[in-house]
Amino acid sequence: MCTWEVWEFPRSLASQQRNNREAAMQQDCAIHEWTALLGSARVSAEDHTRDRYARSTQQFSTRPAAILFPENADEVREIVRIASKHGVPLYPISRGNNWGYGDACAATDNQVIVDLRGMNRIIEVNADLAYAVVEPGVTQQQMADYLAEHDIPLWLDATGAGPDASIVGNTLERGFGHSPAGDHFHNSAGYEIVLADARVLKTGFGHYRNAQAAYIFKPGIGPALDGIFTQSNLGIVTKMGVWLQPKPECLEAFAFTAERDGDIARVIDALRRLRMLGVIQSSVHAANDLRAISTRTRYPWKAMQGQAPLNATTRRDLRAKFGVGAWSGIGGIYGTDETVAAARKVIRREFKGFATVRFFNESRLSLAEKACSVLRSLGMCSRLREQVASARSVFDLLKGSPSPQHLRGAGWRSKHADKNADPLDNHWGFLWFSPVLPLTGAAAAGLMRCIEPIFESHGFEPLVTMTAVTPRALCSVITISYDKSNAEESRRAIECYNHVWNACAGEGLIAYRCGVQSMQKLEQGSETFWDVARAIKLALDPANIIAPGRYIGNAIGGSAVHSSREIPAALSMF
Amino acid sequence: MCTWEVWEFPRSLASQQRNNREAAMQQDCAIHEWTALLGSARVSAEDHTRDRYARSTQQFSTRPAAILFPENADEVREIVRIASKHGVPLYPISRGNNWGYGDACAATDNQVIVDLRGMNRIIEVNADLAYAVVEPGVTQQQMADYLAEHDIPLWLDATGAGPDASIVGNTLERGFGHSPAGDHFHNSAGYEIVLADARVLKTGFGHYRNAQAAYIFKPGIGPALDGIFTQSNLGIVTKMGVWLQPKPECLEAFAFTAERDGDIARVIDALRRLRMLGVIQSSVHAANDLRAISTRTRYPWKAMQGQAPLNATTRRDLRAKFGVGAWSGIGGIYGTDETVAAARKVIRREFKGFATVRFFNESRLSLAEKACSVLRSLGMCSRLREQVASARSVFDLLKGSPSPQHLRGAGWRSKHADKNADPLDNHWGFLWFSPVLPLTGAAAAGLMRCIEPIFESHGFEPLVTMTAVTPRALCSVITISYDKSNAEESRRAIECYNHVWNACAGEGLIAYRCGVQSMQKLEQGSETFWDVARAIKLALDPANIIAPGRYIGNAIGGSAVHSSREIPAALSMF
Repeated sequence: MCTWEVWEFPRSLASQQRNNREAAMQQDCAIHEWTALLGSARVSAEDHTRDRYARSTQQFSTRPAAILFPENADEVREIVRIASKHGVPLYPISRGNNWGYGDACAATDNQVIVDLRGMNRIIEVNADLAYAVVEPGVTQQQMADYLAEHDIPLWLDATGAGPDASIVGNTLERGFGHSPAGDHFHNSAGYEIVLADARVLKTGFGHYRNAQAAYIFKPGIGPALDGIFTQSNLGIVTKMGVWLQPKPECLEAFAFTAERDGDIARVIDALRRLRMLGVIQSSVHAANDLRAISTRTRYPWKAMQGQAPLNATTRRDLRAKFGVGAWSGIGGIYGTDETVAAARKVIRREFKGFATVRFFNESRLSLAEKACSVLRSLGMCSRLREQVASARSVFDLLKGSPSPQHLRGAGWRSKHADKNADPLDNHWGFLWFSPVLPLTGAAAAGLMRCIEPIFESHGFEPLVTMTAVTPRALCSVITISYDKSNAEESRRAIECYNHVWNACAGEGLIAYRCGVQSMQKLEQGSETFWDVARAIKLALDPANIIAPGRYIGNAIGGSAVHSSREIPAALSMF
Repeated sequence: MCTWEVWEFPRSLASQQRNNREAAMQQDCAIHEWTALLGSARVSAEDHTRDRYARSTQQFSTRPAAILFPENADEVREIVRIASKHGVPLYPISRGNNWGYGDACAATDNQVIVDLRGMNRIIEVNADLAYAVVEPGVTQQQMADYLAEHDIPLWLDATGAGPDASIVGNTLERGFGHSPAGDHFHNSAGYEIVLADARVLKTGFGHYRNAQAAYIFKPGIGPALDGIFTQSNLGIVTKMGVWLQPKPECLEAFAFTAERDGDIARVIDALRRLRMLGVIQSSVHAANDLRAISTRTRYPWKAMQGQAPLNATTRRDLRAKFGVGAWSGIGGIYGTDETVAAARKVIRREFKGFATVRFFNESRLSLAEKACSVLRSLGMCSRLREQVASARSVFDLLKGSPSPQHLRGAGWRSKHADKNADPLDNHWGFLWFSPVLPLTGAAAAGLMRCIEPIFESHGFEPLVTMTAVTPRALCSVITISYDKSNAEESRRAIECYNHVWNACAGEGLIAYRCGVQSMQKLEQGSETFWDVARAIKLALDPANIIAPGRYIGNAIGGSAVHSSREIPAALSMF
């Protein structure tokens, strides 16, 4: 039993050094109590585990003080109680696969990671109403497998983050996928949240006894609170209703290719019209040539004789080699035979004159795969075979089957052979910047004009996707991939990132999500919003126990401090 | 210049009486300052105006201390500053047409209404991205007229609340309409909010300089704050982006009728399948026979020889007279010629065997209207003519053209002739109760089983709509219409309302919205949620200046008080 908490020192003796020492003591006490709670197998404070959780695809990373592995919400509540008692900050992660945005890292060193992977129950699946109730540890693959094994006619809306990514984690970061249920925050309801004072809050109607609509109607009655628990640090979400995509009578994919760089404007305008008309009801993803190529191959160091960025000739050669246009993209049409056939006609019409469109479905794809297996035995048409394999991977994603394939592009500049599908094991260096634009061709073209010279000047080439996430909004994910073994290139990657961020902010383009290394940028050019967010933080977590510095900065003397861990006087013993 | 605020009395002398007197003095001071700010023409404290704002379709109503008419956000900020200084509570209304839920009334007497009708600018309409930026005073009719006059190919999503209802007001109450943009909260972004301390908060990306995506991407980055300003009292919304419905290439309405009461289950299951498949992308409204009949005629007091509730024979006669089934409904198919034709096939298939479905569009309706005008000159087919007129009214609503027609049913039990379209001028007595159900036939049938005997026992008949507001959620709006001139019937109406509320709550069915008379019911059977809401209220409006008791109860000593106005000690002078 730990007794530090009963000690009392005169406050006047406090000093920073002393505070640090006392904080370390409090931390030891907390770890002691957590070990009593969870058992030593579920509390890790050894160096090698802490190092493992400190890994990142970025140069910036933070090292946790320890890692805890609760298995249910009651344990999370006890963990929070102990953390509050000792003023030790917690950093909850679902699976820690927040690739390109800080991975499993907290905003500052020495937070204690609460790794929720052990809470991986699929609590309920309702086939009629197309939802599941899941814990944070449930992965995309686990959900997909569950639905297949139980023959439930629902599909997960999968993201490209890979099979091991958490569904809840992605939703709380407001990620997006590919089906009509692709806006993950909008397609979730009924959060169960452990607050900093260990109370359990349920959003929507879930806080009412026997609520029938707990998981199917987001706002419930009264203020809609779920939104404040996304991209924030106001509580630990331990359960959530996620809306699934009912397996449609018919799914057809369409793939489009435009040959000229400038065609992006017409592509995006066409997508807006199709989404506004309701002809396409799901996200459509477009990618520039480099982003498309990056999923198939690595940076051609040899052809470029070790130089970077890519020159125009080599870029053209790569386009030709992989049969990739300046812009290409993919989307799904979900419906019945009748509605899908109708949508096909409208899509053809909208893309006519500047892009080629191909449609494929399960039966056409299977046929192509059979043909390919014959060709393979003859050693022929490797490019065609690769295209078919790529189409399969994309088609499966539309059906909610996650794949590590889509993450591969992030390793574009890596010089190492991949060990497996894990970006950290492979030492990939990459940063993601993801501004939101109006869904207009002019805005999309403007973004490219803005970022291309910046990438060039820092020695990189932009890998860009542009996703029509709603009928009005375009979300671009821009990858800065770099060779992590090259310190100079790593430094330039950060400079490039900051330069792109600032240039976009100057044009009024802000990211929909950001990495832990950039939280302190969020207040630039903003008024009042973050002060209000801090006021709410102070109301719900006055001691700043949960994920300090994550989106909502520390509230100290009314100004924002993102950079250091703070133990408020009320909780500090000295 | 008013000087009350510099007085100081020893706190120990405080008493309730004294407090009341002082509150009245502070109120006078505030009114004095507001008059200096706005001019006497925009401050009303005369009895007849206060009485006018105290009118309600319910027996419960509250009387304001005064009414203020600001014309811009800066004036709202000054109003809030003055209110804070004097501890006088404000009750913001957009147009005050919150029919059936308390109209323009605050939760308690003597709040000062801030009537935002003078802030009625349409600030921006973006035709490509299909949104408008509007102030709270903008009405449905004003928006529809603006779009028509400027030949902008966008439609408003109109509700049945009538031409004079505020768009912003309905959105903040999370109302719903009829088009694919029918979920008003989901289809709004970029709120500008005056907080209790007179700061201006902008949600989404709007708080960033020159934000390009201010009105097209709801959550922005960081915690999504817009939801907490709906169904609450945390600020005064002075501007909002509302998403409009792009005028589709083709709109077709479908109307369905099912003959047996029990068919509601099959109707609702069909609607779920159609919405889940994406074949219908908008709200579909179903109504029971009584609700449908109530828009065409009044309660048949004569046939019933002054008795109520309606007996089975008379009900059957009315059904026959107006050609109404047990359940009927209407929805829109928005798209292109191809997709609408495809949807028509699927809808026919889904309703086959238990409901008749008719489709109509602008050209068929015009043709029918021409035929009717011939028939009218011959004095023939009055029922057909009425049906065509009714179809026109509904079709126009699908196209965003508001009409007073849809509100008429609320006056079902009224014994007076209508003066105009205003429920208050007509002295209609009605209450709305609107539980949310899972979108399943079983849940819908269960609701009817639950409420029918209750209505019967209190001497009423349920007028019921059931709306598939999303692919998963059904929102039922149940009208209790009563004769306001009959005190005994008025009393029974409240008893019936409370009985229905409690019975539904017992089955886990909670309303999506509630009237001012019922705010105190919200905490029944709930855990933690309202405490968290109060903590946020306390953080943003510690003196409880804005709309005390509206959804979020007063936080006094940690417990909820909804019933009386409280001036916190910090602001009270005594």
